[in-house]
Amino acid sequence: MIGGCRGVVPPQNYFMLSDAPLAGLRIIEVSSFIAAPLGGMTLAQLGAEVIRIDPNGGAPDTTRWPVAPNGKSLYWAGLNKGKRSVTLDLRSPEGQRTVADLIAGSGPDGGIVLTNASYPWLSYEALSQTRPDLIHLRITGRHDGGPAVDYTVNAGIGFPLVTGDEAMAGPVNHVLPAWDVACGLYAAVGILTAERHRRRTGAGRAVTLALADVALAVTGHLGFLAEGRLAAGRRRIGNHLYGGFARDFRTSSGDSIMVVTLTARHYADLARVTGRAAALAAVAQALGADFTGDNDRYAHREVIAALLAPWFAEHTTAEVTAALAGTSVLWERYRTFAELAADPGTLANPLVSLIDQPGIGQILATGTPLAQPGTPQAPAPAPTLGADTAAVINELRKKL
Amino acid sequence: MIGGCRGVVPPQNYFMLSDAPLAGLRIIEVSSFIAAPLGGMTLAQLGAEVIRIDPNGGAPDTTRWPVAPNGKSLYWAGLNKGKRSVTLDLRSPEGQRTVADLIAGSGPDGGIVLTNASYPWLSYEALSQTRPDLIHLRITGRHDGGPAVDYTVNAGIGFPLVTGDEAMAGPVNHVLPAWDVACGLYAAVGILTAERHRRRTGAGRAVTLALADVALAVTGHLGFLAEGRLAAGRRRIGNHLYGGFARDFRTSSGDSIMVVTLTARHYADLARVTGRAAALAAVAQALGADFTGDNDRYAHREVIAALLAPWFAEHTTAEVTAALAGTSVLWERYRTFAELAADPGTLANPLVSLIDQPGIGQILATGTPLAQPGTPQAPAPAPTLGADTAAVINELRKKL
Repeated sequence: MIGGCRGVVPPQNYFMLSDAPLAGLRIIEVSSFIAAPLGGMTLAQLGAEVIRIDPNGGAPDTTRWPVAPNGKSLYWAGLNKGKRSVTLDLRSPEGQRTVADLIAGSGPDGGIVLTNASYPWLSYEALSQTRPDLIHLRITGRHDGGPAVDYTVNAGIGFPLVTGDEAMAGPVNHVLPAWDVACGLYAAVGILTAERHRRRTGAGRAVTLALADVALAVTGHLGFLAEGRLAAGRRRIGNHLYGGFARDFRTSSGDSIMVVTLTARHYADLARVTGRAAALAAVAQALGADFTGDNDRYAHREVIAALLAPWFAEHTTAEVTAALAGTSVLWERYRTFAELAADPGTLANPLVSLIDQPGIGQILATGTPLAQPGTPQAPAPAPTLGADTAAVINELRKKL
Repeated sequence: MIGGCRGVVPPQNYFMLSDAPLAGLRIIEVSSFIAAPLGGMTLAQLGAEVIRIDPNGGAPDTTRWPVAPNGKSLYWAGLNKGKRSVTLDLRSPEGQRTVADLIAGSGPDGGIVLTNASYPWLSYEALSQTRPDLIHLRITGRHDGGPAVDYTVNAGIGFPLVTGDEAMAGPVNHVLPAWDVACGLYAAVGILTAERHRRRTGAGRAVTLALADVALAVTGHLGFLAEGRLAAGRRRIGNHLYGGFARDFRTSSGDSIMVVTLTARHYADLARVTGRAAALAAVAQALGADFTGDNDRYAHREVIAALLAPWFAEHTTAEVTAALAGTSVLWERYRTFAELAADPGTLANPLVSLIDQPGIGQILATGTPLAQPGTPQAPAPAPTLGADTAAVINELRKKL
């Protein structure tokens, strides 16, 4: 009823849907910035009840950019959708005790803490005294507990020195906080994993997840670490795909188009559409190369690109679109965020809605990409800071 | 016994550890490239038994770069660690029936499929005939089922047009396949979520996860989509942090250093260490700005950077390191993958091991970043293609 229907108001919180996939799961989140809030929100968008607890006045991320015209944080609103918000004086023993009581009294599907804070009173050791089956996932910067943020982790891991044009010398930072995103999703995996283990064994678990370790693990999984040890490591190759043929081309309209060939068929279609099949075949023969395979397409990528580029430069984006549309070639026009937001296809996606965000107004927001029958994907708004304090405290009092 | 001990051979597969967090969980993976294999491996590294099924001779990712000196794929080895590998003739009815039998006969904690393939015989509809409580997670390119890869998704989502130096015009692609990584982790979340739901209700679930939807959802979560609709959207700001003060500086040694200030204390420490406190205070006063806050530090970022840059340029990396070490400032030297791989601290991390990878030899590999008592983090190697075919088929025959 909700997914895909633009005029329908999404529920305030998915945990109110008793048939949501994670219905019943209850998580106390003491968090700020990206990774921990994203981890909690990922679970909230699948039906978990996530109560984010902030100090009175908010955590340091409360005013983080990007901001709306009225100065309110679009970042905070984006990363706390579908949660309940409680504010407390976290410096007082009373406030700290309330947090502990909320965790201890959150029922058999509760007793789960997600945090990036390191207060002793919020530690596994302290909280497991009253909740022996506690699941406690703490995000840190480094493995040793030291501080780190996405920007510093990324500097140390290798990617900025291979990003950008081949002629460049300095580092190029990513704009997407990719390590924070991966860390938040690993946190969701960690909580679900620990919860499954607790169901089987009754035992809780203290899990630590360092942002720097997420980057190190993923860099290893993708082979960069093994390659860095065996060879001199990756060189900068601009917008080319490593080990195959893919790159960007400029059309006569001034647009850039990313073109990717992963198979012999992709490549043959691209050669045919651009009218360069004969020229490419002749070059391949003269070079003793086989352009039906990834390796030789990569080795001679500049030659192939040089032969194809004039065709793109001589055609408008509309002509290029028409020519590539019926082929197997993988391609996409580069777009700005504003173009993405204005594309009717964006709002037509069931996971996107224009929602009424309390404190800000109408904003474009996104739900979970995990599409499944019976589970709405439309995003619930974020609470305003502290909006659920009274209700949550009242619920707790009734239990005590 | 394993984590942190360099000389110890890690187990071949974590699913053999009966007390692993995901012990008992059994997943059949028919996959290739990054997202689906990473999703399965994430669960395998936490103790699930993941059987990757490939067509005879391997999927298109079998030879993907980066490759070892002997030509074997470090990429495939990196993304299939700790799994079992089965090869079958997937074009024959017999091969397809074997896959269906493996799924149907995988016990109460089985009946879970993770795939990025779209064969009709591998669909939820087909497989749920013999396994009504089937959990089926399928990764697609686009929401409508159409093809897309990380490079094309990234072109359409907005980030390449804001990455890189302010003076640049064209797109800058990321080298980290960030959307594939996020998609793989969302897939792990999706499977664990569906498995929890099945435990509570007995009901299976068909989940679809589009790579393009992952990018759209995350771009929304971070506020870029809302900002893109409300304002003209983000401009290119080089290596600066958006909405605060952070950027790279070059030392007299020729290294680049990423420096981040998120708080007034970080900023004050940076101003003091570089000897620019008085100059910065004078400039702030003259401009009517408050550099203790993020907004004004961001507005005047070029002025602040220009005042600080000479200090970095006049000091060696060792001097900069010594000066920043005792402060609250967040910073990191940019490193290459080769430097990362050669750093003794990398191998000292319990999630990193030099493993004997069958078919390749000794390589640097990584396990899960989710650190928890009793769960080893050291990586198990990947199987060679088809290594477990006979054993898995024999296990199946005993059950039938």
